[in-house]
Amino acid sequence: MLPDVTGATPTYARALAAEAVGTAMLLAAVVGSGIMGERLASGNVAIALLANALATGAALMALIQTFGPVSGAHFNPAVTVADAVQGGLPWNRVGGYVLAQVSGAFVGVMAAHLMFSEPLLAASMHERSGAAQVFSECVATFGLLLVMSGVSRSHAAGVPFAVAAYIAAAYWFTASTSFANPAVTLARAFTNTFAGIRPADVPGFLCGQVTGALVATVLCRWLEPLRPQPAEENHVSHR
Amino acid sequence: MLPDVTGATPTYARALAAEAVGTAMLLAAVVGSGIMGERLASGNVAIALLANALATGAALMALIQTFGPVSGAHFNPAVTVADAVQGGLPWNRVGGYVLAQVSGAFVGVMAAHLMFSEPLLAASMHERSGAAQVFSECVATFGLLLVMSGVSRSHAAGVPFAVAAYIAAAYWFTASTSFANPAVTLARAFTNTFAGIRPADVPGFLCGQVTGALVATVLCRWLEPLRPQPAEENHVSHR
Amino acid sequence: MLPDVTGATPTYARALAAEAVGTAMLLAAVVGSGIMGERLASGNVAIALLANALATGAALMALIQTFGPVSGAHFNPAVTVADAVQGGLPWNRVGGYVLAQVSGAFVGVMAAHLMFSEPLLAASMHERSGAAQVFSECVATFGLLLVMSGVSRSHAAGVPFAVAAYIAAAYWFTASTSFANPAVTLARAFTNTFAGIRPADVPGFLCGQVTGALVATVLCRWLEPLRPQPAEENHVSHR
Amino acid sequence: MLPDVTGATPTYARALAAEAVGTAMLLAAVVGSGIMGERLASGNVAIALLANALATGAALMALIQTFGPVSGAHFNPAVTVADAVQGGLPWNRVGGYVLAQVSGAFVGVMAAHLMFSEPLLAASMHERSGAAQVFSECVATFGLLLVMSGVSRSHAAGVPFAVAAYIAAAYWFTASTSFANPAVTLARAFTNTFAGIRPADVPGFLCGQVTGALVATVLCRWLEPLRPQPAEENHVSHR
Repeated sequence: MLPDVTGATPTYARALAAEAVGTAMLLAAVVGSGIMGERLASGNVAIALLANALATGAALMALIQTFGPVSGAHFNPAVTVADAVQGGLPWNRVGGYVLAQVSGAFVGVMAAHLMFSEPLLAASMHERSGAAQVFSECVATFGLLLVMSGVSRSHAAGVPFAVAAYIAAAYWFTASTSFANPAVTLARAFTNTFAGIRPADVPGFLCGQVTGALVATVLCRWLEPLRPQPAEENHVSHR
Repeated sequence: MLPDVTGATPTYARALAAEAVGTAMLLAAVVGSGIMGERLASGNVAIALLANALATGAALMALIQTFGPVSGAHFNPAVTVADAVQGGLPWNRVGGYVLAQVSGAFVGVMAAHLMFSEPLLAASMHERSGAAQVFSECVATFGLLLVMSGVSRSHAAGVPFAVAAYIAAAYWFTASTSFANPAVTLARAFTNTFAGIRPADVPGFLCGQVTGALVATVLCRWLEPLRPQPAEENHVSHR
Repeated sequence: MLPDVTGATPTYARALAAEAVGTAMLLAAVVGSGIMGERLASGNVAIALLANALATGAALMALIQTFGPVSGAHFNPAVTVADAVQGGLPWNRVGGYVLAQVSGAFVGVMAAHLMFSEPLLAASMHERSGAAQVFSECVATFGLLLVMSGVSRSHAAGVPFAVAAYIAAAYWFTASTSFANPAVTLARAFTNTFAGIRPADVPGFLCGQVTGALVATVLCRWLEPLRPQPAEENHVSHR
Repeated sequence: MLPDVTGATPTYARALAAEAVGTAMLLAAVVGSGIMGERLASGNVAIALLANALATGAALMALIQTFGPVSGAHFNPAVTVADAVQGGLPWNRVGGYVLAQVSGAFVGVMAAHLMFSEPLLAASMHERSGAAQVFSECVATFGLLLVMSGVSRSHAAGVPFAVAAYIAAAYWFTASTSFANPAVTLARAFTNTFAGIRPADVPGFLCGQVTGALVATVLCRWLEPLRPQPAEENHVSHR
């Protein structure tokens, strides 16, 4: 790849770093605020989830604004693949993005564990199984991709706010607390804290997420087929 | 209807789909977060309502940003009729909009029930009756239409934030927790959970909502009669 | 007054209506959410205040966006006088603004009481006295005017967000829960609910508010003396 | 320094006043809302921290919008030094900024104490020690500088929202509740309330903050080396 001398297009290496660091900070926020919430809430799970949802949404808003101009701020393999399907990210960069996201996610979980004096990694014992949970992940991911696609096409500056608000809401309105992200799901299998998920329940979550992403992508293509592509200067590039 | 080849004006079919999917996601958020809130809050209704209000407001903000450019993101027959009265939506599309909203609302309730392993539909036993409740719906809908009309005329990009904030606030400052939406009211009669309303109490709520909408529409016409119509490119079209 | 045929400048009558209706909705939000919070919070005052603060902030954000283009969305005699001092509102309109605000505030309290089946008006028995409370009102009003003046001069579209966030924060960081508004203070003397203030404690609050407003006005004039006046098209006119 | 006759560049004296008053209001918000939260929360620390985090984030958003155009709204020696390193603030103004921030921080703590009838200053007995706490401060400051640097380069108007959201989230996802600010840390050693820190634990916090700031500055220079400098008219100048 040629060096980026204009500064207009961030290079691929910087984009990978942005995806890795951004996903790490996101996981630190998800897992860390879950631990803090559970420790302080005196057993009232609603208060712990309220803190967890607000912290996740607020961190996500800040992180999308921070890394959007460098990498598009996907932090999520489902978003990356959907972006490629719609002609955004070149297909030969998808693998790198996903690898950066998954690696970053594990680093973020370890950072949260270090901050809260937990073991570096530990298999979760938090059961999240059953059809209702899988359907919840399907709905959660469907909605996330719908919001990202719709808002980024018409008003890219609104993406950080819309996505953050959607995720904070979906923590509450889905029975699975809306993982909606395969990289996040994998990494959360290795925290035995509030935000964890039993490794055995991961495949079901991934199925739900893939299904929801597929349905959303088809619907979006039909719903907004003729919209102009976002201009180059739009600083958040989910397309 | 002619095919939309420019992409500037979404076609009617896409607008109906946007109203249906958007209203479905809104109801999933309202009903789902109500169930989650009640299950986790250990009997503290204030904490459940806090979660319910924040999730509803956040989801609404994301959904208005998502579907605003396609359909105007009404999600509410009162908004649709007020829009038509003020010369926005053509009258021959009002019926389709309302049908899409009501159908979407029921689908959303069913989706929430599936996510939380509740019966698909069930008549609510949640009593919400009396003059104070009806007056609350009147105030809630009056305020909602005032906010929508005022903000969309002068600063359309602010509508998703203003409407979401207003509704989250009105969950708390009206005794009825601010349904403010006939389609939502009908569908919530069929969830026997936190967000439900006894079918027998629906007519009173609808009366309050219609009255509030009428008063707001008259006041808005007087308050801002000479304002320029929003330009075509305003992406949220409540007028 | 000449009729407003261009639509560019809202007439005085419409501005008065906007101040009255906006202040009424604000008081309905403050008092109504206080009642709801206290009724539902099972005695945990922090949860009631959290709901009260969030509802007040969110309603204020929506209302400033709604009525800003019509009247400047003062809703507060301290803001109106400070605006006149700085050459914004003509002095001969100050009396009308204040009258509209105080009348609206009482209507809003009565609306809240009707919604929650409370007596229409009742003298409050909620004691809020002592030097710490008065000093709190001084700090609260000082900060409010600083935020309004600073943000409206440089970035008027940010005013609804900055003011709403400031007030929600000040509910928590002042010992008086930040009334910061003489019209609001007078009207809240007549609600014997969560948001009330004993009539005997009103003069102290007003003293604190006037002092804070004076200090802020002097500081603002020194801090930003050379800033260009906001252009006519800025849609929120606190200057 | 020449007098500022154009109004385009605030003078240094006004910038120092903005840093002092802004940091004072920030500390009043942090300490005041901590006291209020603890007093009202009936022993549920999660609810107190929720109020503390929301009040801090909301106040910060309003204050950055208010003082950004005058001084850049640093309120934080780590931000000031990072800004100078990246060629923003001239080095000969760094000392003045830091002095204004530290003085303002102490005034803010005293104002909070006066509002809540606490002793004017008191050494804190709140222990916050150990490697996990120091690492938490490192992560918190790293993230803060990353967010500030990234957002201010590409979309300066988003800084108040991104920074406020980040800090509110970091209250929850770091074990130290994210001081992330040496001036704030020093001043909070002298409040024996919810937000306090034992003077003996201050050096560890400062070490963590300096380390995090260094790592973030290096990463930012690599991540965005070719980005155009923000235009002069960007009203918040963290570079």
